Amino acid sequence: MKRIDNFKAIIDKYNVIFFDAFGVLKNYQGLVPGIERTFEYLAQQKKEYYIVTNDASRSPVQLASSYHKMGLHAITPDRIISSGMLTKEYLYLKVPDGMVAYLGTEGSAHYIESLGLHPIPINEVNESNMDKIKALLFLDDEGFDWKDGLNKAINLMRKRTIPAIVANTDHAYPVTIHDLSVAVGGLAMMVENIVGKKFIRFGKPDSQMFMFAYDLIRDHRPISKKEIVMVGDTLQTDILGGNKFGLDTVLVLSGNTLPKDVDTRVTASGIVPTYICDSAVVQPEMF
Amino acid sequence: MKRIDNFKAIIDKYNVIFFDAFGVLKNYQGLVPGIERTFEYLAQQKKEYYIVTNDASRSPVQLASSYHKMGLHAITPDRIISSGMLTKEYLYLKVPDGMVAYLGTEGSAHYIESLGLHPIPINEVNESNMDKIKALLFLDDEGFDWKDGLNKAINLMRKRTIPAIVANTDHAYPVTIHDLSVAVGGLAMMVENIVGKKFIRFGKPDSQMFMFAYDLIRDHRPISKKEIVMVGDTLQTDILGGNKFGLDTVLVLSGNTLPKDVDTRVTASGIVPTYICDSAVVQPEMF
Amino acid sequence: MKRIDNFKAIIDKYNVIFFDAFGVLKNYQGLVPGIERTFEYLAQQKKEYYIVTNDASRSPVQLASSYHKMGLHAITPDRIISSGMLTKEYLYLKVPDGMVAYLGTEGSAHYIESLGLHPIPINEVNESNMDKIKALLFLDDEGFDWKDGLNKAINLMRKRTIPAIVANTDHAYPVTIHDLSVAVGGLAMMVENIVGKKFIRFGKPDSQMFMFAYDLIRDHRPISKKEIVMVGDTLQTDILGGNKFGLDTVLVLSGNTLPKDVDTRVTASGIVPTYICDSAVVQPEMF
Amino acid sequence: MKRIDNFKAIIDKYNVIFFDAFGVLKNYQGLVPGIERTFEYLAQQKKEYYIVTNDASRSPVQLASSYHKMGLHAITPDRIISSGMLTKEYLYLKVPDGMVAYLGTEGSAHYIESLGLHPIPINEVNESNMDKIKALLFLDDEGFDWKDGLNKAINLMRKRTIPAIVANTDHAYPVTIHDLSVAVGGLAMMVENIVGKKFIRFGKPDSQMFMFAYDLIRDHRPISKKEIVMVGDTLQTDILGGNKFGLDTVLVLSGNTLPKDVDTRVTASGIVPTYICDSAVVQPEMF
Repeated sequence: MKRIDNFKAIIDKYNVIFFDAFGVLKNYQGLVPGIERTFEYLAQQKKEYYIVTNDASRSPVQLASSYHKMGLHAITPDRIISSGMLTKEYLYLKVPDGMVAYLGTEGSAHYIESLGLHPIPINEVNESNMDKIKALLFLDDEGFDWKDGLNKAINLMRKRTIPAIVANTDHAYPVTIHDLSVAVGGLAMMVENIVGKKFIRFGKPDSQMFMFAYDLIRDHRPISKKEIVMVGDTLQTDILGGNKFGLDTVLVLSGNTLPKDVDTRVTASGIVPTYICDSAVVQPEMF
Repeated sequence: MKRIDNFKAIIDKYNVIFFDAFGVLKNYQGLVPGIERTFEYLAQQKKEYYIVTNDASRSPVQLASSYHKMGLHAITPDRIISSGMLTKEYLYLKVPDGMVAYLGTEGSAHYIESLGLHPIPINEVNESNMDKIKALLFLDDEGFDWKDGLNKAINLMRKRTIPAIVANTDHAYPVTIHDLSVAVGGLAMMVENIVGKKFIRFGKPDSQMFMFAYDLIRDHRPISKKEIVMVGDTLQTDILGGNKFGLDTVLVLSGNTLPKDVDTRVTASGIVPTYICDSAVVQPEMF
Repeated sequence: MKRIDNFKAIIDKYNVIFFDAFGVLKNYQGLVPGIERTFEYLAQQKKEYYIVTNDASRSPVQLASSYHKMGLHAITPDRIISSGMLTKEYLYLKVPDGMVAYLGTEGSAHYIESLGLHPIPINEVNESNMDKIKALLFLDDEGFDWKDGLNKAINLMRKRTIPAIVANTDHAYPVTIHDLSVAVGGLAMMVENIVGKKFIRFGKPDSQMFMFAYDLIRDHRPISKKEIVMVGDTLQTDILGGNKFGLDTVLVLSGNTLPKDVDTRVTASGIVPTYICDSAVVQPEMF
Repeated sequence: MKRIDNFKAIIDKYNVIFFDAFGVLKNYQGLVPGIERTFEYLAQQKKEYYIVTNDASRSPVQLASSYHKMGLHAITPDRIISSGMLTKEYLYLKVPDGMVAYLGTEGSAHYIESLGLHPIPINEVNESNMDKIKALLFLDDEGFDWKDGLNKAINLMRKRTIPAIVANTDHAYPVTIHDLSVAVGGLAMMVENIVGKKFIRFGKPDSQMFMFAYDLIRDHRPISKKEIVMVGDTLQTDILGGNKFGLDTVLVLSGNTLPKDVDTRVTASGIVPTYICDSAVVQPEMF
């Protein structure tokens, strides 16, 4: 575990950079100040990069567009690997047709619709359509009535032997500097616990997220895991997942892990990043 | 583990009977048919009995009154031991004054008010009153907006070092013959998991429920645990709790545990009742 | 949560003191220096006291004798409430006769033998006696071969539908200032997890431990929980259990919880003692 | 979920077959009778196959050799994907040099030695070498003294901030038709729970096992996941893992899952195989 002062030194050591999104590139106030310089430097140095995110609430096109609105144009949809994309691959391989119930916004239903499947919002599940549902998806904590929706999810999973897919492994996420909100992964954990069945989870720290990005690179050139570094703000997802997949890892202190807590948390969790750096921002004087 | 055909034989063996409520005396359709005969026989035989219930949504007076409305007049408030009463005892001993936030109906706030404490519905917690709150109570799944309420519960418990009390250990409860609903214990489990702090739980199978009833008896006469039997429909709460407290136990098949599943469930869980009986109903010909 | 400089002030406020043993009265080096003064002061002030301990490895007589050897004569067997005593009460009420298998030393088998039951060390369980065994007890991590014993415990619990009792809820215990050892509660947790059945646990933080001590007092005089204080070194057992039972609690910093960690641990766990005090030692100048 | 009478029909539908080892190809008595015909048919049909196993106790060469001794010569080391190989890849990528402590037999240390790292049996860890250890590996339940070894593993992981790798996710494994033995994954779970740090686990149902096999195929030809089927006897590892990776799956009833239990277990777990088949044996008349 080495302290690195300037993120430029990280970029110089690796050929491919994987970034977590929230807490690394952006936070509840918008872009992390100066992060656009990092992407200028990446372009200048012709380094490859991907955003690896547990965000299944929107499609890659919508996610990229949200960066463009904030002024970061370097992030195009093909650079974004979301847990929603793994969910979509699962549906493509394992659910050939029919209705798929989901918890989430209309936007999150994109992953279902684009495969020609028929999305049913959880609040619209009822006695008459229940028998036609082929899978249940947990996509987002927004877009449905929790009480009715969670009770419907429980009874659907008790009555039918169908797969339940959780497209976001996070249990909570920050909404302001002080406040958290329950994420759909937290709601799914409660439903799974009550129903007693095994749900399928996609998202960091699971290796399948990293493999998806790794495969995108291998499609156009040979690559060793030693050439890739994962950059994230959360020990339990970004760093644990990156380490397990065999990547070097950088913990940045611009999000979930505060500078004052970093040593205690690394020791307590036993999750050790290769490097610790204040942020993923390349300092201006460094070009 | 012995099969008993008529519940009368159980009553004849013990001096005190503890009954679970839901699935034993009543279900979603009303009283278990014939259960009034059980209470006639108990009165005739001068046997003592108590209802030991994980229901903190209403006061003992309200709970008793709901039996009276269904036509069972034998159940008076002094016969009811609820997890709400343990919560009230905890507040009496450990929270001398101030505001107590709660998730539940206005009715459930009775346990707070009757002690002279000031109940605050979870949806009314805000920046201005948060610092005055002395405890958080999970009383009922009804009476509040889930999304706002659960997020407020999480942020309250993250910001303040105050006790959180869960007055119902059940994670779900039946609302019709086919459907479950998440109980407040299920919601509390999710909040506790996200917050990472230790909540205090009152309710079966915890021994404190049984002690409370046991103490009520000892207040007026000497009693041995060998004279008491616990009657319930759920292995994980009624039977496990009764066994651990040292009581003989009867599993009845009129609620959560169906006749076709009973052998598998006992073997799988390792929770063994002393007796198994179809229901807690005394057959008419038996008087 | 108040800081108290001298433990004498605690004694002066309450009529009955419950003490945890390890980390409060003694540690791996012997008695906590000066602790005998606390018992002199208790005697002088005619205060009642009990040792409430998750130690089922020896009988109360043997436990008391170990204090006498260290020079503390105030602790007599009738002052000691151990999780082994709850296990014994359980056997007395629920296992009328036959063989009881156990993991532990010969000394720990005392709790079985004294009831006229037949103790079988786990390493002696075999095909020919397995069918006669009525219960399995986890008493101590010493006194048996772990590999053979744990595998036998697993297969016994898979084949037979009998109760398994864990007489020590601790998962590990300190053996030197630097080193831990797995406690029998840690071994039992692994066995329970593999077998998938529900084991019965006795020991703090469970209320039954506190009720046992509380009942001993009530046998000879009326008492309110407000007159009792629980003194311990561990938030998760002594303080959580004491709080839940409705007692005031004192966290002492002479054992598991170090002075430098106390604030972080209280905040992280949400378990709040009424008082914090360096140790349970009454300072000499205070008499 | 379809019942298939003859395993030949499965082979005919797919281009690549992944087999679990224990309960599918062999059991405690040796080879599953007739399994050699399956491999004759696979050879005749020029189908590709791999053994995907949570066995890190021996190297692929040793594992293949054990099949040869039983008379199955079709299984060569290059066909075997073990969780030990993932562990080795992790060490190669993340632990460049130094000492690696391990729980397991001398044979299991092969994965460490072949990388030029220095293996230290857990029972030989002591104060003088502890500071040089770079990682702790859980490889096998055989080959070390449990009591001393598990206590050393706990204290090593408490004192040092190093990764702990669990090369077998199983908690127990069958040793005879009636008996289980604790697997090293069960021991690791206890150590992890006591230490409170996050260990890295390799083995089914984790996707990394399936990716490793998938990559071996892709090294020499293009392949779609739709051409691959996973065959296993355990819902929680083989079937859950295969499903999550997007493969079709076959549950065979020659091992962990008995014909009488299969419907209950599928419904209870919610883990649904694409097919159910008595065994992976191709019937003789079928050629």
